[in-house]
Amino acid sequence: MSNSEVMEKIISLCKRRGFIFPGSEIYSGVGGIYDYGPLGVELKNNLKKEWWRNMVWEREEIVGLDSAIIMNRRVWEASGHVAAFTDPLVECRRCHQRFREDELPKLPIEKKEKMIDETKEKKSKQELLYIERAEVFCPNCHSPINLNIDEPRQFNLLMKTQLGVLEDEKNETFLRGETCQGIYVNFINILNSMRTKIPFGIAQIGKAFRNEITPGNFTFRMREFEQMEMQYFIKPEAKIAEKWFSFWKKERMDWYLSLGFSKEKLRFREHAPDERAHYAKAAFDIEYSAPFGWKEFEGIHNRGDWDLSRHSQFSGKDLTYFDEESHTKFTPWIIETSAGADRSTLFFLIDAYDEETVGKEKRVVLRLHPKIAPIKAAIFPLVKNVKLVKIAQKIAADLKSKWPIFYDESGSIGRRYRRQDEVGTPFGITVDFDSLEDKKVTVRNRDSLKQERVNVLEIKDYLENKIEAR
Amino acid sequence: MSNSEVMEKIISLCKRRGFIFPGSEIYSGVGGIYDYGPLGVELKNNLKKEWWRNMVWEREEIVGLDSAIIMNRRVWEASGHVAAFTDPLVECRRCHQRFREDELPKLPIEKKEKMIDETKEKKSKQELLYIERAEVFCPNCHSPINLNIDEPRQFNLLMKTQLGVLEDEKNETFLRGETCQGIYVNFINILNSMRTKIPFGIAQIGKAFRNEITPGNFTFRMREFEQMEMQYFIKPEAKIAEKWFSFWKKERMDWYLSLGFSKEKLRFREHAPDERAHYAKAAFDIEYSAPFGWKEFEGIHNRGDWDLSRHSQFSGKDLTYFDEESHTKFTPWIIETSAGADRSTLFFLIDAYDEETVGKEKRVVLRLHPKIAPIKAAIFPLVKNVKLVKIAQKIAADLKSKWPIFYDESGSIGRRYRRQDEVGTPFGITVDFDSLEDKKVTVRNRDSLKQERVNVLEIKDYLENKIEAR
Repeated sequence: MSNSEVMEKIISLCKRRGFIFPGSEIYSGVGGIYDYGPLGVELKNNLKKEWWRNMVWEREEIVGLDSAIIMNRRVWEASGHVAAFTDPLVECRRCHQRFREDELPKLPIEKKEKMIDETKEKKSKQELLYIERAEVFCPNCHSPINLNIDEPRQFNLLMKTQLGVLEDEKNETFLRGETCQGIYVNFINILNSMRTKIPFGIAQIGKAFRNEITPGNFTFRMREFEQMEMQYFIKPEAKIAEKWFSFWKKERMDWYLSLGFSKEKLRFREHAPDERAHYAKAAFDIEYSAPFGWKEFEGIHNRGDWDLSRHSQFSGKDLTYFDEESHTKFTPWIIETSAGADRSTLFFLIDAYDEETVGKEKRVVLRLHPKIAPIKAAIFPLVKNVKLVKIAQKIAADLKSKWPIFYDESGSIGRRYRRQDEVGTPFGITVDFDSLEDKKVTVRNRDSLKQERVNVLEIKDYLENKIEAR
Repeated sequence: MSNSEVMEKIISLCKRRGFIFPGSEIYSGVGGIYDYGPLGVELKNNLKKEWWRNMVWEREEIVGLDSAIIMNRRVWEASGHVAAFTDPLVECRRCHQRFREDELPKLPIEKKEKMIDETKEKKSKQELLYIERAEVFCPNCHSPINLNIDEPRQFNLLMKTQLGVLEDEKNETFLRGETCQGIYVNFINILNSMRTKIPFGIAQIGKAFRNEITPGNFTFRMREFEQMEMQYFIKPEAKIAEKWFSFWKKERMDWYLSLGFSKEKLRFREHAPDERAHYAKAAFDIEYSAPFGWKEFEGIHNRGDWDLSRHSQFSGKDLTYFDEESHTKFTPWIIETSAGADRSTLFFLIDAYDEETVGKEKRVVLRLHPKIAPIKAAIFPLVKNVKLVKIAQKIAADLKSKWPIFYDESGSIGRRYRRQDEVGTPFGITVDFDSLEDKKVTVRNRDSLKQERVNVLEIKDYLENKIEAR
């Protein structure tokens, strides 16, 4: 299967089985916007719930937050987004594709030097640029770049909106471009209300918005997306920062592995010094080997005191921390773990996708970890017999206040199994005529295809052990 | 306690204990925007989780959805929001407060007629309006209205934003003003992927945005807020609609009662025909008796075929349903249940707030239902003794992957209990010196103040029975 075939199959499965639909599809969509269908919302919710459990509930020193998407405009001035979150863009006049200028192909340096040499004249900057782009073609339509590329233009990745009621008096602000800013501006509120002591963290899940230049690769690069971010406040010392940086790298990677990611498809990648954001003292990405290349879906960053210092400066508020042990006041440093909820959802789907032949039949199976599978168990009466249906419905009724459960009585049992394999349901529970005698049902394992007889009264505990075990 | 005192106390508690903070507070806030702190996010998440469990997991015929905040602009033309979601506004020139024109106080009709009569002349519309407002004062600054009120002006409650990259080519669209539109535009996607048969429902939780004229009453009327909406698709027949309308009224009210709302503080209120939205064939609100009056926090509406018809008309897509039983095609009618997640969170907080004197001491207690309480149990070693601390920490470690748990070893035990009462923690678990002998701990009930000795090994089951029971 080629890489583009894999993506085609994933996208088709997502639409056909209710994981992910293009946003506003009946109106021809909106670029870079997607909707999660009935199974997609369960999958993504499971991921968010597991993250929250691991980051907030299970850690004494981390608390949660849910700050608003709309913030005071000054937040984005302090963060540097209003000034810095702009890239010069060039557009190909022929195909109207846009590129960041630094992403345009350039003439190899030897060729360039040779061309300059050949002409023997002193060149203007404009002329040098022209030479640099000679024999280089638009990456999209392959027309010669020098004939077709516009001058670079500025734009802002933040999406604007307006507060206030009368058209002529509206206050412009932005939809947040990242959730972490909501954490920084609440630093003092959290200190005061929760009596937290350094080191401590604040965790948040929520939507963010960016006018991406080139949304694409399905839900990988979207204009509306969800982040799972944690900011960990520590003493401002390089050694301490290094310790926590390593700690969080390991914690975050371990978490993905615990939910079943293929180890060989994950890697760390360190940012080169010139690649790091202005605030970052150190930065590692966690990347997944997607069909469209190694791609980042979480970043671990040492942000130093950049954020709290800037917000203190712009707000005029004291955002320092008083350390009771050392009797000193300081601006904490921050180690950040910033994960994309949509990107990890997509990569879990891709990683789980499998096709195999069982007996003579081909099946598609999503090998999702039971903790994140959208439906935990499917309940089937073997045939549409009143007695079997009654038992099966009773089992479904007992389980469905605890987990999403699917009840299905139509079609052949093999076909019903395959439909559940395709959406990653880890357990298929079948009520057959023996069940009337022995009060047991058959539990089929999605991956091993092994079947076990389990007592009806023990089904809940059986599933609980398999699903919630940690 | 006066009503305004109650609200002051709630707002102060919310800030002091980490439930709700004003948004972007260090930058002097943003009108009508709030952030949920560490306890607030747990409370609101619990409410959302319980709603989802009750509406989606426990009902075979309802599926979930998570559609995007940003939709194609045409959605809001079809919905009528672009045209109709505007109100004429007047502003008091003196205090700059704005009012809907129809909300301004008017001269009593007899006085008005007397004044008109006295002058004996035929009046222009302008003059009549002047008379109507004579002796009437601005509801805010009490200056005479005729001297200070501006002409009414139009505005749009939807918040604008722009998609696309270059400033001069951006496509204007809106942040969604309600989540239900995401359900309508996905009607066919859901039919095709989930094979749903009428009657069935689609449920969704998510943010919506409105440039409210007068945000206020704390988190009651916000500009960014969260909805929990379910759209139930039925046959287009009045009798069937009436049946489901009654069914959903009862289901929704029962749900609030099951989570502990005071029955006498809830009521239904039917919309008068002239009060209903343009699409509504019938509309009931569920209202709570808040300190600032009876206020709506959920609406149950019969929307008829308005929504699907309009979207079919504007998108050119066939949004009818083929009924296999009757072999007919029709546009389903919709019964909607639309709840405010922030409003119900606020009303649960208000309803739970209590002050009482126990022995000689006053305590504040939030009598939140265990299912929605932000922290399920607090674990205390009676004193800071190594052995007690070890047992207490072990108990906390065992419970915290299942629920939010608070561990506290500092201060007197009475003080620790009171701090947990104030945030609604239903169970306080104390490890004392007897625990070393009998392996039991004391579980204190927040409401009854009764104390029980429970075996350490049975704590998890004990809590599960109390918290998850339904």
